Amino acid sequence: MRDAYHEELDSLTDKLVEMTRLVRSAISRATTALLDADLPLAESVISHDEEIDRIFADIEASIYELMARQQPVAIDLRMVITALRMGTDLERMGDLAEHVAKVARLRHPDSAIPPEIRSTIVQMGQIAESLITKAGSCVASRDVEAAMELEHDDDAMDRLHRRLFKEILHKDWKHGVEPAIDITLIGRYYERYADHAVRVARDVVYLVTGSRPS
Amino acid sequence: MRDAYHEELDSLTDKLVEMTRLVRSAISRATTALLDADLPLAESVISHDEEIDRIFADIEASIYELMARQQPVAIDLRMVITALRMGTDLERMGDLAEHVAKVARLRHPDSAIPPEIRSTIVQMGQIAESLITKAGSCVASRDVEAAMELEHDDDAMDRLHRRLFKEILHKDWKHGVEPAIDITLIGRYYERYADHAVRVARDVVYLVTGSRPS
Repeated sequence: MRDAYHEELDSLTDKLVEMTRLVRSAISRATTALLDADLPLAESVISHDEEIDRIFADIEASIYELMARQQPVAIDLRMVITALRMGTDLERMGDLAEHVAKVARLRHPDSAIPPEIRSTIVQMGQIAESLITKAGSCVASRDVEAAMELEHDDDAMDRLHRRLFKEILHKDWKHGVEPAIDITLIGRYYERYADHAVRVARDVVYLVTGSRPS
Repeated sequence: MRDAYHEELDSLTDKLVEMTRLVRSAISRATTALLDADLPLAESVISHDEEIDRIFADIEASIYELMARQQPVAIDLRMVITALRMGTDLERMGDLAEHVAKVARLRHPDSAIPPEIRSTIVQMGQIAESLITKAGSCVASRDVEAAMELEHDDDAMDRLHRRLFKEILHKDWKHGVEPAIDITLIGRYYERYADHAVRVARDVVYLVTGSRPS
């Protein structure tokens, strides 16, 4: 049987996995809200971000309390340190999904996404979801091989991000400055979201192996 | 006399202060490069980012090595944890300064900044420098009161960021989509830079008091 201390460490993992589930749902719903100009859905992403923040505050509090009371060493100390880092990244991913939802809300009842951009945004949303799903199972399973793979998926996001700029800067772009600004920011939010997912996976590698992936 | 272990902890602080100095110089030079369309200066910011990354890699390596060998507890453990967090934020600030410099390089020999936007960018650069200067002295002095003050300066950055959008979206804007995209991204880089400086200051508060500022 696990003692109370190790149960607390296990519960950190559970909370991190729960965070990955919530930030996945947030980006998924934010993408739909954006594409469909769905105001209630955008509002729900915005209001639910508090839940993600609360779990992270809970993780932070447990960690600080645990460090003050126990002296975690070796793998336990790595667990505590990576939990703090992963939580920071996941909390930020929640914010980024919220930022996407806020653009959808700002432009409602119009859509912030002109038809010729839709397909790129759909794909960015899919890659974001795929990255956080994989990162979440790596956190749960501590699968180092799977964690390493996330870097490649992130390359796909970078390609889509570059394509987005090409589309806004195309000579046929007829939507003017405001939608271009929206899409510039949205593109940046997805790109950063993906980057944070990769960082979470890298922390799984450090947690298990004790060294950072190069 | 300090033992080798505490000397290592002190050297973490020295390296963090050095990072604050370098990311301050980076944003200062990036702002000038941007305003003056100064290509050699932009190039120097871009090539010097490696130095910032190297110091952070050095901090990370010391910390992981130190944690494996020693069992830091209480204030020492807080030092280790906050050093890792501060280093992460400072490394990111270096990247953001580099991003600003890359926009300057991309648009050279033109300036990415139209005349009517100059004054806002000058002020964003000044606030960024002021924030990192203050954050740097807080890291060195562990002055909690001073660290708390950074939140207010960050509000000034947020106001400038909002003003920037107003300027790009003004009916008299005659520069078209491409400069609007550049300025959207630049604005975001300064805003994020400021946010990371505030996080560094918050970590000083945690380091000294053992609790997070609300």
